[in-house]
Amino acid sequence: MNNKSLIEVVGGSSMARAFTEIEKAEIKQKIITVASDLFKQKPYKEVKISAITKKLGIAKGSFYNFFSSKEELLITIFSELEKQFHNQIIVTMSNSTNKKQFLIEIMSKLTLECRHNELFKAILQGDVIQDVLQNIPKGLKQQLLKADQQLLEQLIEQDLILKVTPQLAIDMLRSLFYLQTTATELNSNIDIFNMHMIRAVVNEIFE
Amino acid sequence: MNNKSLIEVVGGSSMARAFTEIEKAEIKQKIITVASDLFKQKPYKEVKISAITKKLGIAKGSFYNFFSSKEELLITIFSELEKQFHNQIIVTMSNSTNKKQFLIEIMSKLTLECRHNELFKAILQGDVIQDVLQNIPKGLKQQLLKADQQLLEQLIEQDLILKVTPQLAIDMLRSLFYLQTTATELNSNIDIFNMHMIRAVVNEIFE
Repeated sequence: MNNKSLIEVVGGSSMARAFTEIEKAEIKQKIITVASDLFKQKPYKEVKISAITKKLGIAKGSFYNFFSSKEELLITIFSELEKQFHNQIIVTMSNSTNKKQFLIEIMSKLTLECRHNELFKAILQGDVIQDVLQNIPKGLKQQLLKADQQLLEQLIEQDLILKVTPQLAIDMLRSLFYLQTTATELNSNIDIFNMHMIRAVVNEIFE
Repeated sequence: MNNKSLIEVVGGSSMARAFTEIEKAEIKQKIITVASDLFKQKPYKEVKISAITKKLGIAKGSFYNFFSSKEELLITIFSELEKQFHNQIIVTMSNSTNKKQFLIEIMSKLTLECRHNELFKAILQGDVIQDVLQNIPKGLKQQLLKADQQLLEQLIEQDLILKVTPQLAIDMLRSLFYLQTTATELNSNIDIFNMHMIRAVVNEIFE
């Protein structure tokens, strides 16, 4: 796949022209796919942008047409994982009668699944995500926050009633994620710990 | 205070002899006091053992009679802070009628106090405590765990009834501490966040 132009990567003509939005989205998705594979294979710090572009057969500089940095790429991958997580919650919830109990169960189940997801495991390893989250540009942080707000709005649409402010609810739900990075400090089983922390938080924020 | 022998530091005779247990405890406490001051002044990584021993006027090697490493010293200081925290909970609790509600209130109040404690702030800064906790010898970890167990036993003596295993209760209470290191990620007020997280956890682990 070496030496291909960006155009060949997306299967277009080799005549120089501006990319369509669809083509751009396709390349972006390919970068995400290739990078996700690499992140599973080695530590985040060891994955170089040049290794990603080499695998795709595009120039290193082309990467920056899609992401401003490796950190932005990681956050994008992380956001996609989160979105899948959120969607599964909402889709399965609509049929349940006891929504709060259901939310606790589905969040526990999905957290367990996430913990066995190779990519998620790679991202959570070695404080990578904490480092990155603490240093990302404000714009990207807003993007993550927006996804959380969306999930909360969807939960409220499912007739769950908030006892606290939306902002506090988001922070408390998000803290459940941060606690995954302290798994090594736990003396009890992490799945049981997660289930109880999820229940504690859900009971505190919803009526 | 330079060039003093260990004996002079504790006010003993300058004749060479083995230290009594009381003298050893005194020197250990002085190391803790001096180090605590230094940790408040500069980042943990920049505080050298030689700076501590120089301030006390003792040989650098003497340090290792009391602590096996700077990490052990930090954990000891941290344990003392925690013990003070625990004692305040137990001492003030005995007079309250609604123990669970009181526990939530006193823990919120003390967490707020801790956040304004200069030494605690220094320890929590820059992931120091997380790094150290993840790399401390098993023996020291056991010591921290024992302090947590003791607090829990004292809470149970105060007629609080556990709904979960003691181990899980300890992990959930301890996770409240870990969340302090993610304070910068919060969008809501940290004191309000802490109060609700404490309430969530206390309600989940006690009847």
